[in-house]
Amino acid sequence: MAKKIKIGLFGFGCVGQGLHYVLNNSTGFKADIVKIAVKDRSKKRTVAAELITFDKWEILDNPEIDIIVELIDDAEEAFNIVSEALKRGKHVVTANKKMLALHLAELYKLQQENNVSLLYEASACGSIPIIRTLEEYFDNEELEKVSGVFNGTSNYILTKTITEKLTYSDALKQAQEKGFAESDPTNDVEGFDPKFKSIIIALHAFGLIIRPEEILNLGITTLHANDINYASEKGYKIKLTPVIQRVAENKISIFVAPRFIKTNNHLYNVDNEFNGVIVEGKFSGEQFLQGKGAGSYPTGAAVLSDISALSYGYKYEYKKYAQNRPPEFTNDVLLQVYFRYNSQEDLQRFGFDEINEKYTGRDYNYIVGKLSLQQLIKERQYILDNNLFISLVNETVCLDDEQIKKNVIHKSEPELVNQ
Amino acid sequence: MAKKIKIGLFGFGCVGQGLHYVLNNSTGFKADIVKIAVKDRSKKRTVAAELITFDKWEILDNPEIDIIVELIDDAEEAFNIVSEALKRGKHVVTANKKMLALHLAELYKLQQENNVSLLYEASACGSIPIIRTLEEYFDNEELEKVSGVFNGTSNYILTKTITEKLTYSDALKQAQEKGFAESDPTNDVEGFDPKFKSIIIALHAFGLIIRPEEILNLGITTLHANDINYASEKGYKIKLTPVIQRVAENKISIFVAPRFIKTNNHLYNVDNEFNGVIVEGKFSGEQFLQGKGAGSYPTGAAVLSDISALSYGYKYEYKKYAQNRPPEFTNDVLLQVYFRYNSQEDLQRFGFDEINEKYTGRDYNYIVGKLSLQQLIKERQYILDNNLFISLVNETVCLDDEQIKKNVIHKSEPELVNQ
Repeated sequence: MAKKIKIGLFGFGCVGQGLHYVLNNSTGFKADIVKIAVKDRSKKRTVAAELITFDKWEILDNPEIDIIVELIDDAEEAFNIVSEALKRGKHVVTANKKMLALHLAELYKLQQENNVSLLYEASACGSIPIIRTLEEYFDNEELEKVSGVFNGTSNYILTKTITEKLTYSDALKQAQEKGFAESDPTNDVEGFDPKFKSIIIALHAFGLIIRPEEILNLGITTLHANDINYASEKGYKIKLTPVIQRVAENKISIFVAPRFIKTNNHLYNVDNEFNGVIVEGKFSGEQFLQGKGAGSYPTGAAVLSDISALSYGYKYEYKKYAQNRPPEFTNDVLLQVYFRYNSQEDLQRFGFDEINEKYTGRDYNYIVGKLSLQQLIKERQYILDNNLFISLVNETVCLDDEQIKKNVIHKSEPELVNQ
Repeated sequence: MAKKIKIGLFGFGCVGQGLHYVLNNSTGFKADIVKIAVKDRSKKRTVAAELITFDKWEILDNPEIDIIVELIDDAEEAFNIVSEALKRGKHVVTANKKMLALHLAELYKLQQENNVSLLYEASACGSIPIIRTLEEYFDNEELEKVSGVFNGTSNYILTKTITEKLTYSDALKQAQEKGFAESDPTNDVEGFDPKFKSIIIALHAFGLIIRPEEILNLGITTLHANDINYASEKGYKIKLTPVIQRVAENKISIFVAPRFIKTNNHLYNVDNEFNGVIVEGKFSGEQFLQGKGAGSYPTGAAVLSDISALSYGYKYEYKKYAQNRPPEFTNDVLLQVYFRYNSQEDLQRFGFDEINEKYTGRDYNYIVGKLSLQQLIKERQYILDNNLFISLVNETVCLDDEQIKKNVIHKSEPELVNQ
């Protein structure tokens, strides 16, 4: 595009303002935000009033606008905006991981049908170009595993509680003050946000589209000082880590849970608001990427990078999704976990397959042992309600053959492949 | 391309065989190596004899071949092959960092004139997609610095000598046995190889093309047990690290030298044959990428990734090079270094600007102080001849204003920008 690109922006919060700043302070790239649609009429804005609109159609129906950038909170309204934009032949950049995770199949279809491009690098792991790297660099390599720290907020809280001994609520408050955590931090601290990101990454890494409700997300809200002490004594840090892993030739398992991280793991030094991603390829070995996972400018820079890519006609090819035989998703795996529990009833309820360590104390009880992911999914609410804590103790995910024989949970959606 | 891609391969050494293996064991990507040109007629080959040729024109003049992959050692012959291929309208993938570093300006021109694409991800940092990331993701962001461990061989030797207390010659032998080091390791251990990579990276990160002879490369051949002890006592590891850094608004400094690395630096844990790259952006902050920097399969996978990108019509845009005002290259900086010397004459010769520490012992002498990069360039051969050792002690690179006033060493080549 020789002419200056015209951008219509939805949302002017942390990331929107970051984009505005980065765009105005970048050399070599010419693009203007010509209109910003916001919801809250009472809020003071740091830009000229003529830029602001409260009517989304003023942007969507403006033929002069080349690119729509969607940066609002509300996932369903975001989907409405993005799909209306794609239907109108406009290219779109979004950072809305929840919206993407809920609607990947439809958004794929809309791009194909309308021959437009939807980019969303900023939706996963902030400033780390993980989607582009999976899409462009690992497009032909079979991957074994993608894991990491995908959520800056929970990682910031964990760093402050573990390393600096802050209380959970003080650490959360600090994260909110720094703009890393939203007023309602549920998505971050209960593992929904990294789950949404895992779903996006699973599509580009393995060609799979999985529904959020099929994937376990455990969080850090029930973490106690006892758990931290246990981990520290063993030399571990605790991180909230999504794992997307090939557990058999054609089977992929995905879950989000706290994990004890050893010093020799790349993720050990991924602290505060930083994110880290480990990609394990069949031929290229282990790749590690680290960068800021939250914050106005880093996320704004990621959005700008997508805008720039659009100006060169870039679109995701979804190569692995479009390839012949996408792998199957399975929750039929065994995990080795540390489990802090209250009563004998808890233990029986969870039905551990194997117990490696057992501790019963005046303050608290824990066991280390193997149990099935299916069992964890079933008991997720019980864990939250009873303030129990689960953490993976190492990276092994063993296939449970007995379970596997019974059924395969889910197939990817092949009916979309050839469209 | 719907049809199966036909590849003409030059060279069938470590990387060539890696590519052959990776290509034959990848799912979802269809390409055939239809001819392999090699030099040595006496060597036994692991592929069918009909695939082999000793005549380069048999590949270059074959209209059925879509892509040329150049993986030979000889930089000048490689340049001949690559430029002949580009002139014939063929797309090319190469991993030859020396050839690229010596001929970037000509190769840029050849691509423009013949409307073809030359990709070389495997030339810099093995399996880490650093060029693609700079080219596509940081294309519009002003960068402050790119540094890292760019050479797997020297890093392997350093790891083994420092961590496992192997002698230099034993460590080198091990590296050669594992296929990380060539029979003549000069390029690796004297810092030429990471210098060539720095030149390639400087083009994509800062839009600069610099001649190799303008850039200092110090290596690890004069490293002694005393130096290792000094570093270990302070809790440092020694790494051979290129630095490409913005030292003033419009000035970039580049050099390759050993550096003392603290535990809190990402590079501290980049050991053995691994490479690591730290990219510091104005807005996105510090990004870190780590992956295997040597080895048959990782490098082969990087080459395959380029072949795949070519099949989708990908080419480097060289956006920063094509932008209006490329920065200037300068060697007018001061460095803080550890300097192990023999005699008072050495000290006087190097003319330190500032001395922070001085030790004179029975075994050896060192000082820690500041001296100019220009001085180091002048005395490079003296350092080698007299078995002295220089290591950066921290990351600061201070502008030497007095020197700066005198002259600016070099301007990028703007006459190529608008072609």
